[in-house]
Order: sequence, then C-alpha cells, then structure tokens
Amino acid sequence: MTNKLTGSRVMYGADYNPEQWPIEIIERDIVLMKEAGVNAVTINVFGWGMIQPSEDIYDFGKLDRVFDLLERNGIDVVLATPTAAPPSWMFQNDPTMLKVNEDGQRVAHWSRQAYCPNHPSYRREIRNIAKVLAERYGKRTNLSLWHINNECILQCYCEYCAEAFRVWLREKYGTLERLNESWQLWQWSLAKSDWKQIMPPIGGMSHTSVSLDYKRFLSDSNLQGFLAEKEEIARITPDIPITTNFYSIDFLGQIHHEWAPHLDVIAWDSYPPHKDYAVWAAFQHDYFRGLKNAPFLLMEQASSNVNWKPYNPAKRPGMMSLQSYQAVARGAEAIMYFQLRQSRGGVEKYHSSLVSHGTESDNRIFREIKKLGHELEKLDNVLRTRIEAKVAILFDISLMWLVEWNKTSRDIDYRDTVTAFYRPLYEANIPVDVVHPGSDLSGYDVVIAPMLYMFEKGVPDNLRAFAERGGKLVMSYNSGMTNECDVVEYGGFLRPIDDVFGIIVEEVDALEPDMCNRIERSDGSRYRTDKWGEVVRLNGAEAIAVFLDDYYAGQPAITRNRYRQGEAYYVATHPEDKFIRELLLGICSEAGVSPLCPNAPEGVEITVREDEGRRFLFMLNHNPVSIEMDVRGDRDWAEGIAWQDLLRGENVEGRITLAAYETVILEATAPR
Amino acid sequence: MTNKLTGSRVMYGADYNPEQWPIEIIERDIVLMKEAGVNAVTINVFGWGMIQPSEDIYDFGKLDRVFDLLERNGIDVVLATPTAAPPSWMFQNDPTMLKVNEDGQRVAHWSRQAYCPNHPSYRREIRNIAKVLAERYGKRTNLSLWHINNECILQCYCEYCAEAFRVWLREKYGTLERLNESWQLWQWSLAKSDWKQIMPPIGGMSHTSVSLDYKRFLSDSNLQGFLAEKEEIARITPDIPITTNFYSIDFLGQIHHEWAPHLDVIAWDSYPPHKDYAVWAAFQHDYFRGLKNAPFLLMEQASSNVNWKPYNPAKRPGMMSLQSYQAVARGAEAIMYFQLRQSRGGVEKYHSSLVSHGTESDNRIFREIKKLGHELEKLDNVLRTRIEAKVAILFDISLMWLVEWNKTSRDIDYRDTVTAFYRPLYEANIPVDVVHPGSDLSGYDVVIAPMLYMFEKGVPDNLRAFAERGGKLVMSYNSGMTNECDVVEYGGFLRPIDDVFGIIVEEVDALEPDMCNRIERSDGSRYRTDKWGEVVRLNGAEAIAVFLDDYYAGQPAITRNRYRQGEAYYVATHPEDKFIRELLLGICSEAGVSPLCPNAPEGVEITVREDEGRRFLFMLNHNPVSIEMDVRGDRDWAEGIAWQDLLRGENVEGRITLAAYETVILEATAPR
Amino acid sequence: MTNKLTGSRVMYGADYNPEQWPIEIIERDIVLMKEAGVNAVTINVFGWGMIQPSEDIYDFGKLDRVFDLLERNGIDVVLATPTAAPPSWMFQNDPTMLKVNEDGQRVAHWSRQAYCPNHPSYRREIRNIAKVLAERYGKRTNLSLWHINNECILQCYCEYCAEAFRVWLREKYGTLERLNESWQLWQWSLAKSDWKQIMPPIGGMSHTSVSLDYKRFLSDSNLQGFLAEKEEIARITPDIPITTNFYSIDFLGQIHHEWAPHLDVIAWDSYPPHKDYAVWAAFQHDYFRGLKNAPFLLMEQASSNVNWKPYNPAKRPGMMSLQSYQAVARGAEAIMYFQLRQSRGGVEKYHSSLVSHGTESDNRIFREIKKLGHELEKLDNVLRTRIEAKVAILFDISLMWLVEWNKTSRDIDYRDTVTAFYRPLYEANIPVDVVHPGSDLSGYDVVIAPMLYMFEKGVPDNLRAFAERGGKLVMSYNSGMTNECDVVEYGGFLRPIDDVFGIIVEEVDALEPDMCNRIERSDGSRYRTDKWGEVVRLNGAEAIAVFLDDYYAGQPAITRNRYRQGEAYYVATHPEDKFIRELLLGICSEAGVSPLCPNAPEGVEITVREDEGRRFLFMLNHNPVSIEMDVRGDRDWAEGIAWQDLLRGENVEGRITLAAYETVILEATAPR
Repeated sequence: MTNKLTGSRVMYGADYNPEQWPIEIIERDIVLMKEAGVNAVTINVFGWGMIQPSEDIYDFGKLDRVFDLLERNGIDVVLATPTAAPPSWMFQNDPTMLKVNEDGQRVAHWSRQAYCPNHPSYRREIRNIAKVLAERYGKRTNLSLWHINNECILQCYCEYCAEAFRVWLREKYGTLERLNESWQLWQWSLAKSDWKQIMPPIGGMSHTSVSLDYKRFLSDSNLQGFLAEKEEIARITPDIPITTNFYSIDFLGQIHHEWAPHLDVIAWDSYPPHKDYAVWAAFQHDYFRGLKNAPFLLMEQASSNVNWKPYNPAKRPGMMSLQSYQAVARGAEAIMYFQLRQSRGGVEKYHSSLVSHGTESDNRIFREIKKLGHELEKLDNVLRTRIEAKVAILFDISLMWLVEWNKTSRDIDYRDTVTAFYRPLYEANIPVDVVHPGSDLSGYDVVIAPMLYMFEKGVPDNLRAFAERGGKLVMSYNSGMTNECDVVEYGGFLRPIDDVFGIIVEEVDALEPDMCNRIERSDGSRYRTDKWGEVVRLNGAEAIAVFLDDYYAGQPAITRNRYRQGEAYYVATHPEDKFIRELLLGICSEAGVSPLCPNAPEGVEITVREDEGRRFLFMLNHNPVSIEMDVRGDRDWAEGIAWQDLLRGENVEGRITLAAYETVILEATAPR
Repeated sequence: MTNKLTGSRVMYGADYNPEQWPIEIIERDIVLMKEAGVNAVTINVFGWGMIQPSEDIYDFGKLDRVFDLLERNGIDVVLATPTAAPPSWMFQNDPTMLKVNEDGQRVAHWSRQAYCPNHPSYRREIRNIAKVLAERYGKRTNLSLWHINNECILQCYCEYCAEAFRVWLREKYGTLERLNESWQLWQWSLAKSDWKQIMPPIGGMSHTSVSLDYKRFLSDSNLQGFLAEKEEIARITPDIPITTNFYSIDFLGQIHHEWAPHLDVIAWDSYPPHKDYAVWAAFQHDYFRGLKNAPFLLMEQASSNVNWKPYNPAKRPGMMSLQSYQAVARGAEAIMYFQLRQSRGGVEKYHSSLVSHGTESDNRIFREIKKLGHELEKLDNVLRTRIEAKVAILFDISLMWLVEWNKTSRDIDYRDTVTAFYRPLYEANIPVDVVHPGSDLSGYDVVIAPMLYMFEKGVPDNLRAFAERGGKLVMSYNSGMTNECDVVEYGGFLRPIDDVFGIIVEEVDALEPDMCNRIERSDGSRYRTDKWGEVVRLNGAEAIAVFLDDYYAGQPAITRNRYRQGEAYYVATHPEDKFIRELLLGICSEAGVSPLCPNAPEGVEITVREDEGRRFLFMLNHNPVSIEMDVRGDRDWAEGIAWQDLLRGENVEGRITLAAYETVILEATAPR
Repeated sequence: MTNKLTGSRVMYGADYNPEQWPIEIIERDIVLMKEAGVNAVTINVFGWGMIQPSEDIYDFGKLDRVFDLLERNGIDVVLATPTAAPPSWMFQNDPTMLKVNEDGQRVAHWSRQAYCPNHPSYRREIRNIAKVLAERYGKRTNLSLWHINNECILQCYCEYCAEAFRVWLREKYGTLERLNESWQLWQWSLAKSDWKQIMPPIGGMSHTSVSLDYKRFLSDSNLQGFLAEKEEIARITPDIPITTNFYSIDFLGQIHHEWAPHLDVIAWDSYPPHKDYAVWAAFQHDYFRGLKNAPFLLMEQASSNVNWKPYNPAKRPGMMSLQSYQAVARGAEAIMYFQLRQSRGGVEKYHSSLVSHGTESDNRIFREIKKLGHELEKLDNVLRTRIEAKVAILFDISLMWLVEWNKTSRDIDYRDTVTAFYRPLYEANIPVDVVHPGSDLSGYDVVIAPMLYMFEKGVPDNLRAFAERGGKLVMSYNSGMTNECDVVEYGGFLRPIDDVFGIIVEEVDALEPDMCNRIERSDGSRYRTDKWGEVVRLNGAEAIAVFLDDYYAGQPAITRNRYRQGEAYYVATHPEDKFIRELLLGICSEAGVSPLCPNAPEGVEITVREDEGRRFLFMLNHNPVSIEMDVRGDRDWAEGIAWQDLLRGENVEGRITLAAYETVILEATAPR
C-alpha cells in the first residue's frame, strides 16, 4: 500500500546522459533544467563505458562534476546502474557474454541490451559496478533514488542460459518425474531422463509448457541480476529507495508481479499511441499502480513524438501535459521524460526530448514542458494519496504469450479482450484496479476476468473465495482452459471452479472471419457476437442470454450463477462492445459501485485521489474542444464539501469550463 | 488393384496413446471404445520413450496390458513403430541426430520429428525397435496392421544428409559429367569436379535442379527409413500387412507414387477446410486411391475441430459423419480418428478427439461418433469393391514445389489449377482417378493434364501412346516446360510431344493482376481469361477459341488436334471456371463418359463402388437442407436393377429424400 | 565529360555464354547474330569453370574458337572476367571463401556471387585469371572492351570482412577517439577501446552509423576487387577500355559515384517495370549518364519478359524498341541484351533472350530485335554527342539505405520522393542531369534536392556556392538532418546552410495514414499534403505557401529565400503532385529553362543530343496510339535549322506522325 519514496515534490525531470555531451553543453543544460522546473534527473543509465573505460580503470570525473552541478542547483539525482549497456571491452574479454537470439545467432555489439543475463562474468561485473557506485555516490545529499538497469527484458538462448534453466527447473520441480508429468512430456516421447537433455526452446514455440517456463525463467534471470545489484547497493545505502523502470506491456519479458515486491517503488515508461491513447495509458497506470496498490513513478515519457513507431506524429499542443496529468490522476508521483537532450546519433536521435536539436528550448515543446513543470509545483499536497477502487480487472502478463501460442483463432487477442472489458468502466469513470489474478481481492465488490486462459496455482481458490463472500465475478470465454503449466485439468475447462459458475463447457467453436452469431437477452434485446462461441450446458446457472443462430441456437451464451453470497457470470462468446458495457455497468450498479460524476460529458476522464482528510478530483478533457461540466454530481458535493481549483487557485461553484485538453484539479476544502 | 488388407469390417477407431494415461483412464477408455463401436485402435505412435526409457532398458508393462485389454474386448490393434519421435536420451547420446533446418540451425528437442532421417544412429535404432516390437507382439491374434512411423516428411540439411545426398546422386547420375550436364551446371560456374563439392541447398531454393533432387532425396531418405523398419518386421511377421500414414498434400515431403509400391495398403490423414471441404477431400481420396488403384484407409481425421489452422470452427452436426461417408464412397475401408482421448498438454491439446476434455463421452461429438460406428457395421459388404473411372486427372506432387520455384507470375498456383480442372468433373459426378503422369493410362478415355509443368522421363511417351490409341488428352498452359531435371529441352516447350498437340508455343505472357483477356469460341460465346497467356502458332491443330484482346488478339487460345486415333486439346490461358466446365463436360460427352445420376440436384455427390456381382450407389447431401432426388436416372435402374437402402434397410422405389448432410447408400439387388 | 570508348557504331549485341552450349549451337548462334545485326557480344561473364576447370588446369579451347568465329564474322568482343562466379573447386579448397549472410549463415555454393569479396584467396585468384585472360586475348583485334565481374554488389559478414572493415575504419578515422566521436558511440556504452571490438553488424541495422559505413565498406570492398583486376589488365592492354556493369538502383550495393572515376565508360543493366517504365528508365539513364556526364552503355536489357519479378508480362510489340531508343535518346551508345540464347536450366531459364527456346529466331521477338539492329546502323553519327541540361536533381544512393533506417514514418520513401520531383520535369521534356550532391553544380541554373536527408562532407558548401552565384535551389522536407556519419549537427537540421534557406525547422511531424493537411499559396490556390509536416520558423525567408490545418495552420509550408545572387526554396511537407509540378515548372521558367518542344503531346518524350555542329532531336511516342506533332516548337526551328528524319531518310516539314510506340530521330541539317 505504500512505497519507500518519500519526497515532498512531484518529481519532474528526465534521463540525462552526460557521457554524450561536452561540459559546456552540460552547463547549458543545467540552466535549461532550472528554467523548466526540473527537480530531478536520472543519470548514468548507459554510462558504463564512460565511468569504467577498461577493466581496471575508473573515471568518475565527469559524473562527479555533474553531481556537483546538480547539487548546487537543487536538483535531485536518480542514479542508475549502467548495467543495461555493458561496455565493449567486457564483450571482448569474453565474447560468450553476448546474448544468443531465439534463432541461435549470437549478436554483435552494436546496441544496448546485448548481454546474456545469466552469464557469470556479467553477474560479477554488475555487482562490482553497483558497489563502486554506491560507495562513491551513496552519501550525496541529492541522491534520491536508485534506478537499476533499464527496461530489463533480456532474452537469451545461450549455453549459460541452458545450464541456468536446468538449475531453475530442478528447484521448481524437484525431480524429472514431476517435470515430465507437469509438462506432459510422455506425449511425443519428450520425457527427460537426464537434466542435461533440457535445452532452451531455440527456434520459437514448440511446446507451450517449456516455452512458458522459459519465459518465466528469463524474467527471473533478469530479476536475479536486479537483486544482485540491489544487494550490493542496499548494504551500502539502506535508506535510499531502489527501483527499476518497467517497459509498457507493449514489450514483454518481465512478469511484473514477481518483481514488484523487490522494488521500493514501481516505475514505468509510457509511450502511448497517437490514437486511443487515453484508454491505453489509463489501463497501464491502473496496472502498474495495482502492482503495489500504491503511487508510482512515470519514469519515462516523450515530450512529443518518438522515433520507433510505424508513424510518429508530434504530440499536439496540450497533449503532453494532458497525458502527464492523466498519470498523476491515476497515481503517478513523478513525471519524467526520456530524455533531457536529444542524442545526436544512433537509432534514437529523433526521439523527442526536453531540449531539442537546433532550437533547444526555443520552441513549443519546451514551453509546454516549462509550463507543466511550474504547475506541478502546486501539487505537493497530492503526494501519497490513493485511488479507491471497488472493481478489479484481472490481468496476467503471462497470457500475452500463452494465449498467442494456444490460440485456435487468429482473431483472438488477450490484450484486446481485456481492453474490451476495461474500456466501458474507464469511459464511465468507474475506478478500477488492474491486478494479478492471485492478488488479494478482499477489497473489491466486482472482479472481472476477461479471457483468463490459464488458472495459475491458487487462482481458482482465490476466485471462489471472492464469490463466496459476496463478490460479483465476471469471466469471459477462453478462460480456465489450463493450469499453471498450460496443461488441461481432468474435468476440463473452468475446473476446479466450474461449480462457481454452474456450467459445463462442452465445445469450443473458433469462428472464421465471415462467421458470426447473435445473442438475445430475456428482454428481447439482441447483440452481435463473433470470433468465438462455446457450447455451454447449464449446471445450476441460469442463462441471461442465449445464442440465436447456428447449431447452438437456443443454448446459453451468458450465464449467471448464485454462489454462496456472491454471483458468477460467464460470457461464452465475444459480444459487441455495447453488450459488454451494458452487462458490466449493470453488474456494477447492482454491486453499488457508481461512476464518479455520472453526468460528466463524454471524453472527460474523472478520477479521485484521496487519503485521510485529503481529496482531489481530477477532471481531464480529452476532447479537442472546450467543454462545460457540473461537478455537483459527485458524491462529495452532496456531502457538502467545497472545492478549490488547485491550478487556478479559485473556488468552484458547481459549473466549470475545461478548455480543449485541459486538466482541472479540484481540492476538497472545508464544507460549503 | 488390390491391397493386402483383408479384414471383414470397416475399420473404425482412433490413435490411442497409452503413454499419456494412467491405467484407470485406459480402462475407462476401453469401455468408451466399445460404446462407440470402435473395432481397431492405433497404438504406440509416439510411445518410444515409454517402451525404451533408456538405451538398455525396455518396459513393455503398460503396452502389454493395453494389448490384453483390447484383445479381451475384441478390438484390433494397428501397431505403430514409434520412430517419428525418438526419445530424449537418444539425442543426448548423439546430439548430431537432431535435424538441421533449411537455415542451417540445429533444432532443440521439444517436438516430434526432430531427428535426421539419414543419421546412422537413427537408422540403427529404428531397426532395433521395429524388430523388438515384431518379436514381442507379432503373434498377438488381434494385431491386424503395422503402422510404420507417422506422417514421415522429415527435412534435414545436416552433414550426414550432405554425405548421403552425394551417394544418392552418384547412384542416380553415375558421373559428375552427367550431373553437370543434367543440371546445366556449367552455367554460373556451378559445375562440380568432386562429389564433395555438393552441399545441401541450405538457405532455400537457389538452383531448381538441385533443390528438386534434394526434395526427391529427402523423400527417399524417409522411405529408406521406412524400408529398413519394414525389412525387420516383414521377416518376423510376413503375413501382417504394413503401411504408413501419409499427410494430406497440404504438407509436402513424400513423393507418394514412389512410396506406394512398398505399402501393403495406402493410408492417409484428412483434415479438410471448413469451407469447400468436399472438393478438397474428394480430390485427395481419388488421389490416394489412385496410388494403388485400390481401396485405402482413412487413418486420421478429426471428430470436430483441429487446433492448428488459422481458424478452427467445430464441425457442424452431421458434418463429421458426412465426411466419413465421403471417404468410404470414394474408396476408404477404414475411418479412424486422431485421437481417442484429447491430450492434456503440448501443442495438440485442443485437437478434438473421440473422448473430450471434461465431458468425455457426454456430448454431441461422441454421440455422432457412436451413431456412425454402429452404422458402419452394416457396410461389411462394401469392402473390396472398386471405383470405376474412365477419366484421369494427372497430378505430380513434385510440381507443388517446382511450379512455385519457377513461377513467373505470383498468381500461378499448381494445386489451384488442378482443382479448377477437377471441380467440374466432381460437381457433375463423373468418376475420376487422380494419378501420376507416368501411370498406366490404358483404362481411360479422357486424360486431363492441368499445368503439367515438368515432363518426367517416360511421360511424353505415355501421353503420346494414350492419344495414339484413341484417348482424348487435355493439357493446360505452363505445361511441358522442362524435363525431369527442370531443364528446358532443345525444341522448347511441350517437346517432345508438340506434334501430338499440333502447336508451337512462341511466347509466355504472365499477366499483372489488373490485366486480363477474353477468348471467343466459334459459336460466338465469350469468356474471361487472366493470369497467363501463351502466344501459340498452329502447326496442324485447329483453334477452337481465339483471344480477343491485346497483341495476340485473333491468335489461338484453345486448340484441338487430331492425333492418330485420338485428340489432343491445349488450353493456352487461364479461363474462367465456366469455360473449363463446358470444355471438359463436352469432351467427356464426346468420349461417351457420362455423369452418375445426371439429374442429381446440386450439392449431392454420387459415387458407385462395385465389383463382380456387387454394386453400391452412394449419395451424399452436402446441402444444409434436405433434398429429394430420383435415382432412376442411373444406368442400373435402366437395366432393371432394384435398390435397397443399406442403412435404413428398406427397398427404394425411385424417389428418395436425403436430410441435410445425410448419406444414403443403395445396394443393387435382384432385378425389379 | 568523355569516356574512353571510341567505337564508330552503336554497340548492339548480348551476353553470350559459350560454356552452356555445344559448338554446333554456337555456330548456329553466330549466324543468328549476323542476321540480327549484332556487332558485339559479351562473353565469359560466368565462364570461369570452363576456362579453369581446376586449380592448375586451363582450357581455352572453346573460348578461342568463339573468339575466332566472332572475329571472322566481324563481331566485337566485350571480354568479361568471370569473377562473379568462382568455380566450385575454389570453394572446396577454402570453404571460408563462401560468403556469410547478414544473419550469420554461410551460404552453400548453388549460385553465382557466393564468395566473400575480401577473402585473400579470392583476391589472389581474380588477379590471376584477369592476368591470364589479358595475356591470352589482349592482342585480339576484335577485343573492344573489358567487362570486369558482373553487377558487383556482394554483401558478406564473415571474419575476413570483419578484419578488413577494421583496417578500412582505421584508415578512414585514424583513431578510435575519432571513430567514437564520429559515430557517437559513447551513447549506450558502444565506444570501442580496441579495434578488435568492431564486428560487422550481423543481424541487420542496429546502429545507423556503423551500418552506413559497413555498406560503404562493402561497396569499397567490391571496388577493390575491381581495381585489382583492372590493375592486372591495364598493365597488359593499356588501350582497351575497362568497365563493369552496374545493376539498376533496384539492387543496392555499389556507391556509384565512387566507382565512376575508375571506369572508362559507365555501363548499366535496365529492367524496367511493365507500368510506368518510362520515368523509371529515364531517371536512371540520366543518373548513370550523370556519373561521368558522358554517354554510357546499356549493357543489359531483356528482349521481352524477365523471370524474377512478381509478374512478368511480355514486352508488348514495339516496346523493346522504344525502350532501346529511349536509352539512346538519353545518352546510350550501346544496346545489349541479357542474353543471346535462353539458358536451359537454373533460375534464369525463363528470362527472354535474343534466341528463344524452341522457336529460336522464328518469332516476334527476334523480328523486332533484327529490325532494331539494322535501324541502329543508321545512328553512327549520334555517337559522342551530349545531353545539355540546365537542371540537376541531386540523388545520393546511400540514402536508399539511410532514409529507410531512419524513417519515422512508414510511408516515407526516398526513391519515391526523388521520382515525385523528377517526374514533372520529365513530363515537360526539360532535360535533367541526376547527379551526386557533391558534384560540380556550376553548369546548372536550377538544382533540386528532394529529401536530401544526409549532408555529406562538402555538400553544404557546394549548395551554398551554387546559390551564391545565382542558382535556384529547391530542397524538400527530411533534408539536412544529419552529417556524413548520420549524426545530427549541433544547430540542428539544415545546418550549416539554414541561412541559405532563411528558416529554422522547429518540429517534425510524421503523419499517420489517415492524417493530412492543406497548403495555400498567396493567390488562394490550395493543395493537399500528407505524410509529413515540419513546423518552420521564418528567419529571413518568405512563405510562399502556408499550412491551413492542424496546430501549425498559418505557419510556412513552402518558403523562398533570396541568398546572394540566388534563391533557395524549401518544401516543408509532402504536397500533391500538382503542386510540385507547378512549383518546379515555375522556378525553371523564372530561371529561363524551357521545355523542348513545349507543344509536344502528352506521352511524347523529347530529348536532344548534340555536339559541335551536330544536333539530333529524339521524339518517342509512349502512347499506344499514333499521334501527330509539330516540331516547329523547338528552338532550332526558330533558328531556321532544317530537319531530316534519320530512320526514314526524309526531310521534315513541320508536322510529323508517330505511330504507337514509334521513335523518330531528326537530324539538324543545313538551314532551311
């Protein structure tokens, strides 16, 4: 519920890479930082080559100087260990430290993240550099946070990984008998009689159980590197919090909920799409906040366009600010950019930054950054408030792989399905936590499990307990197909909680693109469905909608089962969005979960951050036009609370106007 | 004309893999087999790991038990050698036994078919296990058939294959001089002066002659493995027939007509598409039957959906049964499923089976299986009858590669072209054999050669002889381009039988997608053509249609040449389906080949199986609605034969009703 | 301005590969050459295997014979060194001579161009065979030209290349400090502390600077091979000119302007698309002519279709001839085919030739070849005339890679953009040179630089000097982004010549496919733009069009700046074709550059070749119908020159009729 980070300001700044710049540029950049309202910078993310130019030589001259300059200017330092980018001499010393790709090819050293995460030389060197950094900079007064490695999702298939994988499996399964049974290796004579027979799944997915565990192993391999560094650092600077920055879920490789307990604060990097950015980002803010159920850091975002998407439009005026406020509205306590100054070479040179090529600060982008920086200074009071949600969406990052490997329809997509269930709640301004299926669900009234393909150990019991004590549980098709090893349980799908749903799934029908069906509710309303249909037999549940077409016409499509104190819904097909919205809002309503400001106009996102005695209402206008709204719809108003506009510094009397892309933050004050 | 298989029942059953199941499950499965009418199961297909868990240890406990249980329950055994899936210890003993992919990468052992088919260790081990199995189970009274390996299309590019390829080439070509000349290797200085200079064509097709021979070599390598096993088995159990199951032609790797003489009975695995399944399957039934011109076994099919297609809809009610009867109607004497019980893990866990996850036998699928099983018991008398066809379509599986490698238009497709010429005959219920171009054609009146790109040795003489003695020969564009080494003959295309066609092909024009042409027959009817046009000069033939457009307007598009007693047609472009239908039905009609039941409604497939004194009329309704038809159109009726409905057990008086997807089988009885 | 080639005939002939043919075929081919008007053939391009069948054995029997036959028939020889296709024994002697692909896989020897261009054995062997050939054939009277290697764009990533790359870099950069700085390798800790740390960029583009230099290095590696051969040859036959044939720019690998000084005459191979062939070919004729600003050889073209495009339609009647004349019209002094006789095997067997499979010379294609051959005999007088252009388009072949690697919009394409600016000039019959940005620009009035993404060293000064002395310079968006190492200069885009344009580029906006904008000129005319928009600030320039939409509405889209005696235009977006045409024709008009025959009908291409006292007007009718035109629009007419039709041999009185696809060549004679 809390994290170790205890600053008194919204952290505002950027990655800064002094190894790229001469000192006169650095001095100019410090001036620009001050002008922009920057209060923290992340340094040394890729600086290993500079500070340790060869095995036995360290050169901290420039880094010391930068520390000095920042300190003198009152700017905090997020100090990164540079372990995402080992220097060339290290690979020369031992070329086997270069990672081997999934196709068996060892890479050349022309990029960051070129190393094997399990290589003993790598592990030794990262411990060393972490220790050296902690010893040198641990006492700096402006050192506010450690940042270990960077977007740490290395994938390697070398012989060191093979050996480490065997050790990892032996620890997990104990005996080969258990491994063979757990993965069902007697099939196709794949059973292993010697641990040495186990190889990394080079050449792509061929057996889902091994591929799944290999992905888990790699996430854990990266985590072990993180923990090795953390151990060195924490011994020397026990009071400085430690984090690492997660990629967005566009890039897979880390099983976040296994990392989360080891981070003092969650940090992630947000690069939303140009279109539909709001739901994309909201979902992930809710997800990364949910990892510790606590505020988090937006560790990277672009000031304008990035360089690596198929198309890279500039962020339109106001958009960067709006997206920054959206992060804060959903739990962020830092707004950081990648990066401070645009790099001159390499593949990221067109990634926008705080200081641009050419015009540097004399441009629209910098002016927006500066405006935001000074606005954020008014938000100190928001720090360490929480988001209160009674609804949880279950999201298991492993399913991003597993559903893909197992899909019997090309059109099935785990992330799209989760988003289809998240979107109506987002649009209705119903606060949601996005959490792992094994999380504590006791605080929720409604739990939604879209396409929960795999039931990991403990998940069925967790869901049963939730329903038992009165929760409303909603699950969609293609759920509960397999256990944590991607093996189908005796008893079939949804086992061992099919009784909670009161149904039996007899058949799965993965439709071709030109096939569809319709469903009908008891009130006669009809909806289109496509992609997927399951032939379901009632076993205690009631059908709240039935199929209208094809050979399962008349059979249940949406079911509801009363289970102990709660209810369990099952959605046996892929319905159109309208149906999902009506279903979920109806269930929320029955559970007593109501939207924030139910009268908010479309395109206005509302959140509340609060804590004892504090309450902030965030209103974000995603519309390209200005809009009027009445805040008297919120429950606080009913309770007689008065509002003050935090940024404008005025009291609010009910109606409020939001300019295009504008954010308004209201602070609850004394009663009216 | 006959095969060695002499059972008295239509074989009905499934693959069964006891290595995946505990004994209590197996016992339950035997009960379900009986309930479903199963009379045979294929066991041990992938069971090597169970029966030989390490080099020196054998464990036949469970397999013996399964044999006992099956024997006790009157169920025959198709005993597979498990050589498609060598166990892990074998790869550990010699990692070079793992196959090397076309890109030069050695695979890891996470799938079946991971071995090099030419590896000496592999060859030694498969001989051994085959011998051990034959010795142990050869005397079992319920052993009805040997099933060697499984869908045996291994592709490997390792050093063992390189060496074996050199030996294979030396046997085929004798000298390097002949090889260099046959492949035209003086071009580009590719000529070899030492056999060691020959390497597998790693990295994909670069020289069509070597690539073609490498594919032939791999087919033969797999065949040599089969023959090695067969030798061991046949010595011990000379009276038990031996087969292997072919993939459908969706998966290439075996040159079937070279395998066929070595099999006692042909067996293939049919996984038709959801749409247009009927022509897809009919063509392949006719092809696999044609390999020995004899009944065959449907060795695998899915009870409902599979898991590996882009989309995997369930088979609609009645469809599985209809597809099974279609196989029988076109020559099958076995209907077998893959597999008896759905596997719990791995990549095939969502492939439908006889016994499903969860509901096991309590579902629609099992009920249809059971109904079919008991119906098939009425078909004993159909066994060992034949299909009589006067029309042959020539199909050369090698062209699936060769046309692809040589195509000068992205839109040219060998299989689609063959299907375009097969479809109108199928739809008209004209019996067709699909045979290799080198086959004995003396029994046919019409022979159709769609896109016979390559003339293998003997093929021109075979076609000439057919025409000479009065046959009608139809050939399409892109035919006769090269000889058996994919080398153009002096004299050019269609050589050495261009005189049979009486034409000279001057130019080949591979059209872009937005280009087309039209052709006109002498009666003024016009048809669209596209994709391909050849500029043809008459050299004795007459033009029965000419092009209307572009620079070859007025020149011959379709030609006919009287050659000795016969006629040879050439189709120099890709016409719309309507034209192909009219052309082929016209030619058949002139040849005195008439449809079965010419008045059959659209979507009703008709076949006849017959033998001395026996005659069965199969009528399959592929329409989703019931349909009436009059069987008095068939020639037997005219001859005064009376019909009995084999499944319903009633006499038939002319009109008959077929429900949606229903099959009716009429047996000719005494004269009316 | 001139080349060493001094023949008195338009060279007409083909590649001929005697190693593929028996002597009786060769003798027949010589007869056909004579019939077709062939006066030169290129031999021995891939004949190494024949003339040196093993390391110590040479066999020149057939080549001598061919030389004799050609000599006796008055046919010149272009003698190729066969070094594009080393024989198999050479690879057997040293398998490391086989090249390694970008993915790290060493190829098998089943194709030409299978060697490593940096391998010491290869370098030794090519010197030897070049010397041997020069010694044997150097005195032949019909030896007219050396042709070294063939389409020499080898790409290799082996250890020999790695080592050679290090040497190459050391020569270029001197020290690692300079390399690290030039490539900005401190970023991501990629800086090198030992030359050995540098590896080829296996696995594709990961760092643009190294990838760019690796491409340059490979071009240079191929050039070094060329120079090694040239050195051997030139020592022995100093008077015989030497060339190599360039691929079209469809195939990358040679940085042509670095090769050009070493060739005595430029030669290239033209395989235009079926549609839009005219602009495709015109651009490249102008480009390859521009390399030396001198006539060139069309070293290869197809007589009709090729085999390797997605679709390969035949060249329609007249098309081959028209395309040949187009080459001559734009500077060609040779029209050569690949190849004389269609090969029987391998991947090129369906590539059309002078002598076809089957019908050999008895077909339309040969008849057109023959007609053209005899027509070209009338063009002796055209030889060594020049094309006079006052407009230059800048084209840097390196940008074909570099724009691709750096593009922030999937829809940006360097070649398409250059073509978009070239097309309106082509269509208006305004002569254009296509030249490297570093070329001497002093002869031009207008210089157009579409998407000149990178400013190589010297280019900014070159452009500044051009504007300074009165030139009109036009540059489009995405220009001047980086220096010659693909590194952004301090000062940003367009530096160091942003003052020439009088603008500052503040932002780059890479639009998504459904986004667009509009621009408006001061006269109110409006045009659509898409793909790209730059936010530009005027810094001395004036806006001649402004954006109408989005957040930069009202800001400059097209700017003009008076700079010293000249003017510099900047196009900050991707406008529709109509705008580009109006802009460029307007600028040309202001510069006094006017079209040839301004009244020529659409689809008629006009060029002039001239020299002291000689002047030829080429008129090519690309329309599929005949067309009338009046040649009195040309300036010569005004000057009172009379014209004679060179092919028809008649005087011309103003109006002239061109048949579909016909070419008419008028020679200026005495004044009317």
